[in-house]
Amino acid sequence: MTQFPVPDVDDLPEDLRERIEAETERAGFTPNVFSAFGYKPSHFRAFFAYHDALVEDAALSREEIEMLVVAVSGVNHCYYCNVAHGALVRIYAKDPLLADQLVANYRTADVSERHRAMLDVAVKLTERPQAFEPADLDRLREVGFDEEEIWDIGSVTAFYNLSNRMASFADMRPNEEFHTMARTPRGED
Amino acid sequence: MTQFPVPDVDDLPEDLRERIEAETERAGFTPNVFSAFGYKPSHFRAFFAYHDALVEDAALSREEIEMLVVAVSGVNHCYYCNVAHGALVRIYAKDPLLADQLVANYRTADVSERHRAMLDVAVKLTERPQAFEPADLDRLREVGFDEEEIWDIGSVTAFYNLSNRMASFADMRPNEEFHTMARTPRGED
Amino acid sequence: MTQFPVPDVDDLPEDLRERIEAETERAGFTPNVFSAFGYKPSHFRAFFAYHDALVEDAALSREEIEMLVVAVSGVNHCYYCNVAHGALVRIYAKDPLLADQLVANYRTADVSERHRAMLDVAVKLTERPQAFEPADLDRLREVGFDEEEIWDIGSVTAFYNLSNRMASFADMRPNEEFHTMARTPRGED
Amino acid sequence: MTQFPVPDVDDLPEDLRERIEAETERAGFTPNVFSAFGYKPSHFRAFFAYHDALVEDAALSREEIEMLVVAVSGVNHCYYCNVAHGALVRIYAKDPLLADQLVANYRTADVSERHRAMLDVAVKLTERPQAFEPADLDRLREVGFDEEEIWDIGSVTAFYNLSNRMASFADMRPNEEFHTMARTPRGED
Amino acid sequence: MTQFPVPDVDDLPEDLRERIEAETERAGFTPNVFSAFGYKPSHFRAFFAYHDALVEDAALSREEIEMLVVAVSGVNHCYYCNVAHGALVRIYAKDPLLADQLVANYRTADVSERHRAMLDVAVKLTERPQAFEPADLDRLREVGFDEEEIWDIGSVTAFYNLSNRMASFADMRPNEEFHTMARTPRGED
Amino acid sequence: MTQFPVPDVDDLPEDLRERIEAETERAGFTPNVFSAFGYKPSHFRAFFAYHDALVEDAALSREEIEMLVVAVSGVNHCYYCNVAHGALVRIYAKDPLLADQLVANYRTADVSERHRAMLDVAVKLTERPQAFEPADLDRLREVGFDEEEIWDIGSVTAFYNLSNRMASFADMRPNEEFHTMARTPRGED
Repeated sequence: MTQFPVPDVDDLPEDLRERIEAETERAGFTPNVFSAFGYKPSHFRAFFAYHDALVEDAALSREEIEMLVVAVSGVNHCYYCNVAHGALVRIYAKDPLLADQLVANYRTADVSERHRAMLDVAVKLTERPQAFEPADLDRLREVGFDEEEIWDIGSVTAFYNLSNRMASFADMRPNEEFHTMARTPRGED
Repeated sequence: MTQFPVPDVDDLPEDLRERIEAETERAGFTPNVFSAFGYKPSHFRAFFAYHDALVEDAALSREEIEMLVVAVSGVNHCYYCNVAHGALVRIYAKDPLLADQLVANYRTADVSERHRAMLDVAVKLTERPQAFEPADLDRLREVGFDEEEIWDIGSVTAFYNLSNRMASFADMRPNEEFHTMARTPRGED
Repeated sequence: MTQFPVPDVDDLPEDLRERIEAETERAGFTPNVFSAFGYKPSHFRAFFAYHDALVEDAALSREEIEMLVVAVSGVNHCYYCNVAHGALVRIYAKDPLLADQLVANYRTADVSERHRAMLDVAVKLTERPQAFEPADLDRLREVGFDEEEIWDIGSVTAFYNLSNRMASFADMRPNEEFHTMARTPRGED
Repeated sequence: MTQFPVPDVDDLPEDLRERIEAETERAGFTPNVFSAFGYKPSHFRAFFAYHDALVEDAALSREEIEMLVVAVSGVNHCYYCNVAHGALVRIYAKDPLLADQLVANYRTADVSERHRAMLDVAVKLTERPQAFEPADLDRLREVGFDEEEIWDIGSVTAFYNLSNRMASFADMRPNEEFHTMARTPRGED
Repeated sequence: MTQFPVPDVDDLPEDLRERIEAETERAGFTPNVFSAFGYKPSHFRAFFAYHDALVEDAALSREEIEMLVVAVSGVNHCYYCNVAHGALVRIYAKDPLLADQLVANYRTADVSERHRAMLDVAVKLTERPQAFEPADLDRLREVGFDEEEIWDIGSVTAFYNLSNRMASFADMRPNEEFHTMARTPRGED
Repeated sequence: MTQFPVPDVDDLPEDLRERIEAETERAGFTPNVFSAFGYKPSHFRAFFAYHDALVEDAALSREEIEMLVVAVSGVNHCYYCNVAHGALVRIYAKDPLLADQLVANYRTADVSERHRAMLDVAVKLTERPQAFEPADLDRLREVGFDEEEIWDIGSVTAFYNLSNRMASFADMRPNEEFHTMARTPRGED
């Protein structure tokens, strides 16, 4: 993050420190978004609590959530989220190509008709929220998403419209590790 | 909210019920956004915790926050936020005209040069996040915002890009009361 | 109007003076658009003659005309017309909420399918006149508008694309009175 | 005009008939816009009265007015106005190439710095009226336009935003004669 | 061309000189695009070899190719191509009005349903290549274009997206002759 | 390529076969763009001859050329070019992160001020060719590009506006190998 100071982890409140240590252990490095939000602890707590609610109390699979994140971040041209969540797409979808497709143009992604409808809705809500209408949800109902899944599609899309803007605003930069993570073709690791 | 069922307050977890009761007491009616987010309690908690962090641990004045909200909601064409936060602008800015100016076109708002810069940055981050660059923050520095105020300008803008999209997605409708609240000219109440 | 001098009514030609006096008597104040166009009497006469032709020799109801005006002014982000014609929508539609819906986003307005088609056509002609095609008129025919009503939908839309631009160009500001006019809920006045 | 019936001239009110006869005599043919507006005589009178006010009580030269019309019609992609007013540009500017430049892209037109500023302002007011601000008028003041000339630049631009939309809405088609009129290079007629 | 020097034909390599002489003989003047690309002979050869492949090994008729060129150049607002290829449309389509229609707005062109589909696809690929999808080709299949014709529609569209950008970049200006060429109505020459 | 048949290499004319064999030997696999253009040999020759002229008779370095290609392909959302030329950026710039930056948002790329100016010009010419003007070239002159380098910046940009559209039109898909090529950090291979 080039636009705001990144505090030393040791200077952060204990709950932040614990979260950062857990994330660092899981990933093998500290994802920069955690260091960046350390700038303002009350916002750190709110941002990650929302994130956790989206992925932990989710009607969607984690693979679906990460596909949404990268399609949204692709049209918002967010470098941090393209790369960091691109790695998560590769991991959760077990597909080394899907993230590059979603970053470039979600219309080229090799996905099911059901997931294509999900991405179309997310991108419309991202690009032209003013044109979004109740009828747009019918497309999701038609391909079989249930009510809570539909709520979650909207919620994940909305949250990453927040997240992309924070990353662009503060100029957050993804860790180098994310660029190469999980790029090995299936089963060849 | 026309797209998802609105649960009965009595059926909600206690912490949600208490929050809704407190809001109802304060406003004299239950703002619909609280009923709407009751659909998914984990998201209710996350959404309002983030909101509370933004307004309670704020480097900006509440008047500035609500001006940002309405300028952002105006360009996103969000009916719920234009009207509900329009009322808050009238209350916190003690100005019966400012909200209608911000809803229509923030460029017509009678605001200081400092606040104009704040709104320009918020609208650019809203409309073209891909074009946002560190240099855009210089405009804020030049009119005297300090570092944490700048962070908060970005954070409020980003959060209402989430909020506007949730309101459009779920078709949330503002309470009738918000349309007329605080419209009496200064001192004539 | 901040960009051009507003002449004293007493210095205007007699026909302008009479019109302004009649409008002042009707409204209880002089709507600023009349003072503004006094800057150039030949344009005052042409502008209000066209306006009068649209509302006096009209196949549409006055309620429909004002709905068109505010939907067009909403997408053109015209502060003057949003507020002044917003008041007229509240009066002619006898609905205290409709104007705020049309200003924010005509897609959220509680209107009939017939009126929704009318507004869709007006907004398309406003936003992308180059993409407008004869086939767009079929939508109006299908919901039952007759030929002269269709002509009038186009004419009102076109005229307020003129009007919005004059207001933005000259920075015309609505009278304070318009902001609060007719906001009382039906039957409670 | 393909979308509304074109009345027989003999069936029109006398004032319209006289105007059409005068225009026919002047041009050698009846420009289709006169036949088209005959559909609704009250609008015919209003439209041409506004037009006449713009060109007869004008602070700008007729050459400047027609340049504005074609630059505006070019960005609005209006076939009727591009061609009919393109002919007028060739006639009033005594330049066989200028109209094709303005239709294609006013930035390529061989015009003075003063006229370039005039066209920049007109195109901005046409394309993004919501972004137009008082400061945009400073550009016109700097290149020497006086106050009434500036008002007229706004008025001509606004009127042809009406006119282009009426032509697109009703699918008005220019007379064949306009395409070739005044195309002979200077002095070779 | 105002942005790069135009070399003297006599100083060019022999193959360029021969091509320019042949073009000059055919047209009666040297089309400026040939002089312009003389700036860099290796690019001259590549540009005209691609052009020649498109028009000489073509599944489309030359009339169809030139219609595509002008529709694409119209939406790209390219003065050079509008005017130079506008002349070619008049010649190959034997229609003095079609080019002005395509330049202004291809939707107003008097063309068959088949050609309208062709132009819709070309303009979509030009304006929003990111939104182009395999399903867009179905429209071409439905109106009867065969596989190689479809490939050529894409290829001509893509090439003039190159050509329009070179003309805008280098500020190439069409020869005066192109503006008036073949404007005489059918059979009256 | 999903939209047109890909011919068997053995069935292609000898000059195409030789080129494909040379490319296959160099890369270790046949880049799909060569197989795709085999569909129409005359276009294969023209496309690669233009490409070769751009990279072989170049005033720019190959690193600069590939940076231009990926920045242009990023804003055009071209999956094929993002991935295939992303690999070339990593190779020629000897930088494993730069391609992901350029694909996501060239404004986040860690490049010199000189290269930033180059990319700004290329993206403007790509996104809004109609707004491109001679003055835009001054930016390139100011950061020290000479005349032929400037011509080449325009030419590479224009050519990849062709190439991106052919890839989107025919739905060309990058080889899997390109996604991972040269991702190892400097010196660690």
